[in-house]
Amino acid sequence: MQILAKDVKKLRDQTGISMMACKKALTEANGNIDEAKKLLKKQGEKLAEKKLSRDTQQGVVSSYIHNNSRVGAIIEVHCETDFVAKNKEFQKLCQELAIQVTGFSPLYISTKDIPEEDIKRQKELYKKEFSSQNLNGDRLEKAIESKLEKFKKENSLLSQPYFRDEKKTVEELIHASIAKLGENIQVKRFTRYQI
Amino acid sequence: MQILAKDVKKLRDQTGISMMACKKALTEANGNIDEAKKLLKKQGEKLAEKKLSRDTQQGVVSSYIHNNSRVGAIIEVHCETDFVAKNKEFQKLCQELAIQVTGFSPLYISTKDIPEEDIKRQKELYKKEFSSQNLNGDRLEKAIESKLEKFKKENSLLSQPYFRDEKKTVEELIHASIAKLGENIQVKRFTRYQI
Repeated sequence: MQILAKDVKKLRDQTGISMMACKKALTEANGNIDEAKKLLKKQGEKLAEKKLSRDTQQGVVSSYIHNNSRVGAIIEVHCETDFVAKNKEFQKLCQELAIQVTGFSPLYISTKDIPEEDIKRQKELYKKEFSSQNLNGDRLEKAIESKLEKFKKENSLLSQPYFRDEKKTVEELIHASIAKLGENIQVKRFTRYQI
Repeated sequence: MQILAKDVKKLRDQTGISMMACKKALTEANGNIDEAKKLLKKQGEKLAEKKLSRDTQQGVVSSYIHNNSRVGAIIEVHCETDFVAKNKEFQKLCQELAIQVTGFSPLYISTKDIPEEDIKRQKELYKKEFSSQNLNGDRLEKAIESKLEKFKKENSLLSQPYFRDEKKTVEELIHASIAKLGENIQVKRFTRYQI
């Protein structure tokens, strides 16, 4: 089948991925742009997964202060090389992450980072909330678990919806950059202040 | 004695303090500008002292990232009113403090904030350093105290020399703003990240 140059161009514009890779994906998808996009996304995730175990020593410190100067955040994001640390696109990602932290006030980087004591405290809180509802053991347990899952996702930077495109998580945003830049990217730490 | 208008103007330009106060100080100092400046400084310190007990609920979050994006800081500074929080000069002060933290990496706000365990750790360190020097009890104690004082001053934001004018401490810089703006100003917290 014939792959149209304008479709390759369109796919590249939408994904930022190389012409070659876009053409290959379009061929595999029989010229269907949406299918090709899904393929590229899957490939990107695979690539990101491979990179995720790699060591990160370089990086960028980025900050954001909201217009009214009453709230702001600073974030440290690592990558593998000085070359990527100086890359405009990587720096833009770090800026986006600083804005995300300022606007969505996560408490943790990932759901895996939540200290056991915080989970315990939340569980106690939910137990109290449900105490009036006369739930039995199993159903109470499930109700608490579901609340806890919500708490974890809402308060972990990586599982929050990305503020510019709520269909994406912040983790997906970062993985797309990993695929594009070809290096592991790790959020190391962040701090948010609010008056 | 005759106070020259140009001297009043000069004093005002150098201190930022009102014409009235400058003229009064010049009169008291018999027209000597340097003496008048000392008087104004003393008055400012007195005024700052009075303000220092007042409650601060408003303020600004400010940040600074060094050009190379490898180091930066965020700082929260409080004042008394929203009016001062929006004041350009107050905001400039906060910006200067963020730069100071970025460049001079203090660990504490004030020498009074240093945790007892940090002081203990430093003392142990100095004891070890001095162990080869065969100092006796009193002289050892003094040598350690002097090292400790240096450590405290160098690592506390308020007692550090202000990076733009090393004859001033950061605390003096803040006290001058308190005198000028007429409100208590307190550094609440800061964080510094470096790759």
